[in-house]
Amino acid sequence: MDKLFIIKIGGNVIDDDVKRSSFAQSFAAISQKKILIHGGGKLATRLAEQLNVPQQMVDGRRITDAETLKIVTMVYAGSVNKELVALLQKDGCNALGLSGADGNVITAHKRVHPTTDYGFAGDIDNINTDLLHQFLQHGITPVLAPVTHDGKGQLLNTNADTIAQETAKAMSALYEVVLVYCFEKEGVLGGDGKVVPVIDRAAYKDLKENNTVSGGMIPKLDNAFEAIEKGVRAVIIGSAGQLNDLLNETAGTRIQ
Amino acid sequence: MDKLFIIKIGGNVIDDDVKRSSFAQSFAAISQKKILIHGGGKLATRLAEQLNVPQQMVDGRRITDAETLKIVTMVYAGSVNKELVALLQKDGCNALGLSGADGNVITAHKRVHPTTDYGFAGDIDNINTDLLHQFLQHGITPVLAPVTHDGKGQLLNTNADTIAQETAKAMSALYEVVLVYCFEKEGVLGGDGKVVPVIDRAAYKDLKENNTVSGGMIPKLDNAFEAIEKGVRAVIIGSAGQLNDLLNETAGTRIQ
Repeated sequence: MDKLFIIKIGGNVIDDDVKRSSFAQSFAAISQKKILIHGGGKLATRLAEQLNVPQQMVDGRRITDAETLKIVTMVYAGSVNKELVALLQKDGCNALGLSGADGNVITAHKRVHPTTDYGFAGDIDNINTDLLHQFLQHGITPVLAPVTHDGKGQLLNTNADTIAQETAKAMSALYEVVLVYCFEKEGVLGGDGKVVPVIDRAAYKDLKENNTVSGGMIPKLDNAFEAIEKGVRAVIIGSAGQLNDLLNETAGTRIQ
Repeated sequence: MDKLFIIKIGGNVIDDDVKRSSFAQSFAAISQKKILIHGGGKLATRLAEQLNVPQQMVDGRRITDAETLKIVTMVYAGSVNKELVALLQKDGCNALGLSGADGNVITAHKRVHPTTDYGFAGDIDNINTDLLHQFLQHGITPVLAPVTHDGKGQLLNTNADTIAQETAKAMSALYEVVLVYCFEKEGVLGGDGKVVPVIDRAAYKDLKENNTVSGGMIPKLDNAFEAIEKGVRAVIIGSAGQLNDLLNETAGTRIQ
């Protein structure tokens, strides 16, 4: 099977012109097949402030009323997605931006939750692996914005980490997938404050037991191990500024 | 050659939920291959007002500074494009939204003008007919937002009528293209106030000489005849609410 890198970048890369441009160059230079997934939450929050649309977060998820849905659609699928695509085109990568509605690439349903109404927030039902495969076979690099649809005319705001995870699991049927989460830190830090290069199930148990990993890192790692159980070859966590080193396994934390 | 309908809709359809939904149903029902091009200028102007970004128009074209470019990218390639795509998906049309940067589908250069600096406004250099052809062959309907790129990392605001026209001319090498402009009126009105069903070169000369057509209709018709000289089979002008009748030639004005 061909190798496929599925790379997710967050707000710290998108918000900063220098980091974004540098990341785009590194990403474009990857010779293997690749898919990019981006967030943009901070920019959406900023636009909501400018438009006086109050924002409410519950457990790190945005409550998405109709006005907020329009804002995230404009920011994620509009400016963030198209600016990234234009940069990648400049760097010789034939990028093509997609929301989940485009080519029906990601369908989702409105989140059902016992106590919280998340509004137009979507939980993923299906990834159109055939369309993504067709693009990759034609030398086109999909760039996914975190907006999906329900197939009934409704767009839905969907977490970018989750899109990356579900896309990686689904594409594992066709490719040897390596899922890369770029975030603020250089990787998972061990007790000595240094990046732990590799974490397997046994090491993860130890790291949790001695409280070396805690808080927001635990769901990230739980999700990584779940992805691996579903066929993803490896999950790498590290800094977007070290993208090439992450892929060469000379930086970041590799979960396998 | 296969028939291809290239249909451009303007603000009066996009702004109105009922008209938009009804248009999407009619468009989705077209059994032949088709491409949709949309504007969104009124919505961009509204967002600019909300964000206190002054807008300036010269000869009907928007002066596009950096902030305005971000606004049009958010509105055209973000909310307007994705809401249309989601509606078309609901109606069974496998739509896929594209800015000119996506898949390098439309390249342009920053407009050079002797007296006016239009800012980030783009004049078209090339239409990627191969990519559009691939989509059409795979049953995918491209939905083009009026934002292009220069291949050097810069997005550019580009007139939707012009995108429709240039796409129609370029695709005429591969298809029997009918270009349809949907606007506020039911067609070109004759001296009796009724829609003129067909205008050829000779009829156009008469209509101009007796001042039946004037003002903004003249550049529209000049462009239509130019498209026909470049291989477009016919240009139809009429109301979006009569889309099926326009295509059946029982409404609107057909220029040939």
